[in-house]
Amino acid sequence: MTATATSPERVSFETHPQQYHHWRLSTDGDLARLTMAVNPSCGLRPGYELKLNSYDLGVDIELADAIQRLRFEHPEVRCVVIDGALDKVFCAGANIQMLRTSGHGWKVNFCKFTNETRLYLEDASQHSGLKSLAACNGATAGGGYELALACDEILLVDDSNSTVSLPEVPLLAVLPGTGGLTRVVDKRMVRRDHADVFSTLVEGIKGQRAIDWKLVDDIAPLSQFEARTKEMARELANSVEDKSDRIGVALPPLEVTHEEGAMRYRYVTVTWDESTRQGELQIQLPNAGNPADATAAHAEGAQWWLFDMFRQIDDALLNMRINLPLINVMSVRVLGNPQVALDSDAFLAAHQDHWFVTEVACFMKRVLKRYDLTAKSFFALADEGTAFAGTWLEFGLGADRFYVLDEEDTPVQLGVSSMNGGAYPMSNDLSRLESRFLGDLDQAGRVLAKQGLIAAADALGLGLSTESMDLIDWEDEIRVHLEERASYSPDSLTGMEANLRFAGPETLETKIFGRLTAWQNWIFQRPNAVGASGALQCYGTPSRPEFDYNRT
Amino acid sequence: MTATATSPERVSFETHPQQYHHWRLSTDGDLARLTMAVNPSCGLRPGYELKLNSYDLGVDIELADAIQRLRFEHPEVRCVVIDGALDKVFCAGANIQMLRTSGHGWKVNFCKFTNETRLYLEDASQHSGLKSLAACNGATAGGGYELALACDEILLVDDSNSTVSLPEVPLLAVLPGTGGLTRVVDKRMVRRDHADVFSTLVEGIKGQRAIDWKLVDDIAPLSQFEARTKEMARELANSVEDKSDRIGVALPPLEVTHEEGAMRYRYVTVTWDESTRQGELQIQLPNAGNPADATAAHAEGAQWWLFDMFRQIDDALLNMRINLPLINVMSVRVLGNPQVALDSDAFLAAHQDHWFVTEVACFMKRVLKRYDLTAKSFFALADEGTAFAGTWLEFGLGADRFYVLDEEDTPVQLGVSSMNGGAYPMSNDLSRLESRFLGDLDQAGRVLAKQGLIAAADALGLGLSTESMDLIDWEDEIRVHLEERASYSPDSLTGMEANLRFAGPETLETKIFGRLTAWQNWIFQRPNAVGASGALQCYGTPSRPEFDYNRT
Repeated sequence: MTATATSPERVSFETHPQQYHHWRLSTDGDLARLTMAVNPSCGLRPGYELKLNSYDLGVDIELADAIQRLRFEHPEVRCVVIDGALDKVFCAGANIQMLRTSGHGWKVNFCKFTNETRLYLEDASQHSGLKSLAACNGATAGGGYELALACDEILLVDDSNSTVSLPEVPLLAVLPGTGGLTRVVDKRMVRRDHADVFSTLVEGIKGQRAIDWKLVDDIAPLSQFEARTKEMARELANSVEDKSDRIGVALPPLEVTHEEGAMRYRYVTVTWDESTRQGELQIQLPNAGNPADATAAHAEGAQWWLFDMFRQIDDALLNMRINLPLINVMSVRVLGNPQVALDSDAFLAAHQDHWFVTEVACFMKRVLKRYDLTAKSFFALADEGTAFAGTWLEFGLGADRFYVLDEEDTPVQLGVSSMNGGAYPMSNDLSRLESRFLGDLDQAGRVLAKQGLIAAADALGLGLSTESMDLIDWEDEIRVHLEERASYSPDSLTGMEANLRFAGPETLETKIFGRLTAWQNWIFQRPNAVGASGALQCYGTPSRPEFDYNRT
Repeated sequence: MTATATSPERVSFETHPQQYHHWRLSTDGDLARLTMAVNPSCGLRPGYELKLNSYDLGVDIELADAIQRLRFEHPEVRCVVIDGALDKVFCAGANIQMLRTSGHGWKVNFCKFTNETRLYLEDASQHSGLKSLAACNGATAGGGYELALACDEILLVDDSNSTVSLPEVPLLAVLPGTGGLTRVVDKRMVRRDHADVFSTLVEGIKGQRAIDWKLVDDIAPLSQFEARTKEMARELANSVEDKSDRIGVALPPLEVTHEEGAMRYRYVTVTWDESTRQGELQIQLPNAGNPADATAAHAEGAQWWLFDMFRQIDDALLNMRINLPLINVMSVRVLGNPQVALDSDAFLAAHQDHWFVTEVACFMKRVLKRYDLTAKSFFALADEGTAFAGTWLEFGLGADRFYVLDEEDTPVQLGVSSMNGGAYPMSNDLSRLESRFLGDLDQAGRVLAKQGLIAAADALGLGLSTESMDLIDWEDEIRVHLEERASYSPDSLTGMEANLRFAGPETLETKIFGRLTAWQNWIFQRPNAVGASGALQCYGTPSRPEFDYNRT
């Protein structure tokens, strides 16, 4: 998480429990405890103190790491209790001073990452048999309550002081934007007028009213808090299948070299040029087969090339977002032999009864979602040597455009596998094929029926390629398309892509990234929040905010 | 539409075909023609010329009026053809110079109104048997194409020049925010990569490719354009039931007096005080019964008190939004005898087989949606003399909070009718009861089962009131709640309400107002669009925009 020598401001998303500054992770049989113990002096950037278990991106990177490790290193765990190490405060939410001293882009990316992390907690509950209990042993405010909302159940200490609260609107003139407003009405289904009162009540809500309004699941006095925590955790754990026979897989640090204009992993290379605002994401399939069987895959663990590759892609995407703000458009190429991709998919499909294989596929799904939600234009380029097949076809379907070289003398092949049929739902809960062919779902079926290798010449007719070109046009046309894209206002591209990528139904997840986030980003631009006399600037200072009271 | 003497800047939403500056409306049997013929010198505000059939709020107020009149005054019409009076241009979209010279709040409200108008066109298609055909007889750009997208079908002239296009992103660094991006992928279900290419292609798309990409339904050379227009209009008209026996109902101007701090209609009074940022919306039920039957209601026409009242509420809401920007929180009271409300609902429910009664109820639905989408905090107050019953209970259910006076000596009654069961769906396609009890739909059923008058004492238990108070607390508590609300940043309230009011599923409509509009509002704050060197400022001038190329 600390900066590196080559680029002092680069944020790293890699960490390990032994390096945590802010959390303590322990397991005991099928239960785990993740205790928030934020070190005030270990902020990711200088200029703020992380008092009262308030958090910044660094704290959340550790949280994301802990969830990932629970899923892979401690697969026997069926319930994690998230509690706090402080006496009267569970978590005070995002650090205000950090927000105040952050630029707009940082705030937006911080919120996106924290939102993804909370969704991963919910994903673990739904898909990995890992339930979570927020044991709120003190004041649970703002982002603290939003973290609790992402857990399956919430227990609040019943004392004279401790409340749950979303005081962002009245105190800071911003929204509870880490899913708070959405989860209150859409997940916990709090009545909208109660939600309105709650979201404007600085002091929050406690006791029986918190239960009656569905804001928490239970309360317990301090003397019984630990006992009740254990009881609820036990119930949650027992609600999922026994996983005691699962042996964890260690997640070693990724090997990556950073240099000027390039990040190089074993299977992933990112290169970029700030002067053109363009970059390239290259994914290299190995010349390797599959493990012999699921047991062998499990034995390979993090060395299994498939898992290793997607961990690298995930890290590369996160780096792109935070560390490469000036890169606007990314070419995407999957290189290698498309048959390797299809064989790998066959292996994945055949071994879904093994927890580790399933967990890896579930992780791949999240990486692909991260791709959909990355605010860069992605142009996938299927030219010589590429292998957009099966799982890797998703990088073409998920791109804003997918160009295919169709030249008789240069055979390019794509491929379709059963994994394109729903193994990797987008945030809108549709597969990328279904999202693409929303108006003609039969076409999605026709593509799926073509399982196997697909000649480049067929890509256009199947609706896979945006445009197919021959070699004479390829280089010039692609160059012009990329240059044009890179010349547009990045804000308008971000807004456009956020609308075009998610056709069809909305879910809790898309509502968080669409509706809630877009409104929050708007507010993060408004003087009432971020101006010199805005509430975010004045909070905790002697100054009172001065608002422009015109309603928009 | 012109300003009035009492308040020179007040926008009026009332007009009449004989007063139109920008459209020509004619009917011929079951067909109508609505021709866009924008008068460049008749902008609503000074400082811009409406060249090339570009539009401002004034143009759209006339369009909304025309749609409303087709539904009520010309109910026999089964298809309206929307075309343009210019030679080579159908419509150039929203006027850039108008946008450039507009403040943020004006832009936002302009877009909201234009979005509602286009949704009304779609609502007419779905519920009033009024189909629409966009006969694009020339260049159809930006907002011009967004208008076409709202029609059931689009015919584009096939000549060497005319295209459909959404050039906002590449030319102006803003979004096609009047539903454009949403309708392209969610209504016409254009493939997302095609939509991406299309939305960045300044020159637009024409001919067979426009059909292949589902951007238009048909093309015709100029020599056959009129014939093909008539043919398609005929097919659309024939696709709905015969309505030739329907006799229209004239829509006379509303009677309203404007004074300092008050707008007074016959059944509706709006009062406000800018110093407290508070206002009140009062709706007065008459001491009148229902018309004898549907024929009598039809004979009363716009004089039928129910229809008259909702036309007044609609106008009051529009005035509130545009003309009262400094008012942030509105008390809402429905005054009168709740039995009048329930009787009126019984009449409505009993006569749904008469087109006029249905059309009035459908209009009431739209007025209630306008209420949901109004960026003011609404606190409904059920105290002495109020009548939140049936249809009018929706104003309590749709409010951000609903306070009920529960005092033995002061009988207050609410009421429930069958009309609360789904007659007035919100934008999310749920009834307000279903939205309220999303987590407990049985409770929605229990409330519906209570049809009839409801004592104030039962309102809390039924989940209708946010809080019930006795007389001792009432005045002080309400005052404090209103003052508190009025003290918050209006931006954060707008964002919060936009998230809390629309729990549950999303629809094309909520996606336009949630996802698309929120992103557009964000972009309308960004220097790349609206800064001194932003694209919106530079377009059409010798200056080239200068962008901050950091991606957010």
